Amino acid sequence: MAAWSERLAGVRGVLLDISGVLHDSGEGGGVPIPGSVEALARLKRSQLKVRFCTNESQKSRGDLVGLLRHMGFDISEDEVTAPAPATCLILKERGLRPHLLIHDGIRSEFAQIDTSNPNCVVIADAGESFSYQNMNKAFQVLMELDNPVLISLGKGRYYKETSGLMLDVGAYTKALEYACGIKAEVVGKPAPGYFQSALQEMGVESHEAQ
Amino acid sequence: MAAWSERLAGVRGVLLDISGVLHDSGEGGGVPIPGSVEALARLKRSQLKVRFCTNESQKSRGDLVGLLRHMGFDISEDEVTAPAPATCLILKERGLRPHLLIHDGIRSEFAQIDTSNPNCVVIADAGESFSYQNMNKAFQVLMELDNPVLISLGKGRYYKETSGLMLDVGAYTKALEYACGIKAEVVGKPAPGYFQSALQEMGVESHEAQ
Repeated sequence: MAAWSERLAGVRGVLLDISGVLHDSGEGGGVPIPGSVEALARLKRSQLKVRFCTNESQKSRGDLVGLLRHMGFDISEDEVTAPAPATCLILKERGLRPHLLIHDGIRSEFAQIDTSNPNCVVIADAGESFSYQNMNKAFQVLMELDNPVLISLGKGRYYKETSGLMLDVGAYTKALEYACGIKAEVVGKPAPGYFQSALQEMGVESHEAQ
Repeated sequence: MAAWSERLAGVRGVLLDISGVLHDSGEGGGVPIPGSVEALARLKRSQLKVRFCTNESQKSRGDLVGLLRHMGFDISEDEVTAPAPATCLILKERGLRPHLLIHDGIRSEFAQIDTSNPNCVVIADAGESFSYQNMNKAFQVLMELDNPVLISLGKGRYYKETSGLMLDVGAYTKALEYACGIKAEVVGKPAPGYFQSALQEMGVESHEAQ
């Protein structure tokens, strides 16, 4: 294996995931992954720029950063690229007024968004809020639109919590896609535009990042 | 248009759908479609064999037939091909013990089926029972199997009730297929084997049926 200095030649910035990299999520925010607090601290002391790129869509950035800081991580809200604020930019740019099928924990991220008379649906990892009634409401909103737009915060199949495997937003997005005969727009990893926006915010070109 | 006698040359039997053909479903069982009670009575008086082929998966055959008879239709339970009893035959043949993600209204159809230590999942139009918790449980059962088998009672996208459009089983089946990376086996229309079993029960070959 090449030495670190060699492997990092030309690298100016590092994009880090959060869940499964810094911590394992679960009840009460989960637990830090052994060694990750110190590893992040070392990165921060280095010459490298550091940014976090997450698909977290159950918690606001503020709540997520609060939890991580409580665990000892050196992280601030403006270092985090998350799908909800990225979606808000898109909604404003395109004049979209969403019906929100989301977890209450992330609702504050959409506080500045006009949700009257919806002309699109935004779906996130709603967890227990993925009731039949809520899914059906989102479905009916889409079916009433001439040009149904469905924006999905990520397309994960499932994730692991300390209590076991949990269905993620991608599964429910597939359900709406099939029922309506449409294709969702994904905001979050692995969409290339999402990584690109994180790099821009870090001020680093893609070939300079790890 | 050719005369009826010409169009029916060689036809010995008629397969009829139920929902949307005999009645529109909805609160309290829905309402008969105008003219359908009399049309069925005429068919029954003719030389043609008549059988009903439905994807109904919220009500047992007994409950469904009871509702239809109450509306004035000449129909009996043993004239109905429905996905739940067809699924029970498959489960018994293959030694499958299902975890049932179904509506309570159809649970009686599975009374004779061993559901201990499940080695497959059966999904039907569960309606309000499509909670996150119930979907996640079915997902976890599938993920714990070496060879996950998912049997879906139909693959409908949605259906119309008197109160509006409702998400059907197909949407939720897609969610589980995507999350688990598997393909469901469909018991119900439009699976050719399902029509075939209805024809066999009627004692008519496919070229002799309408």
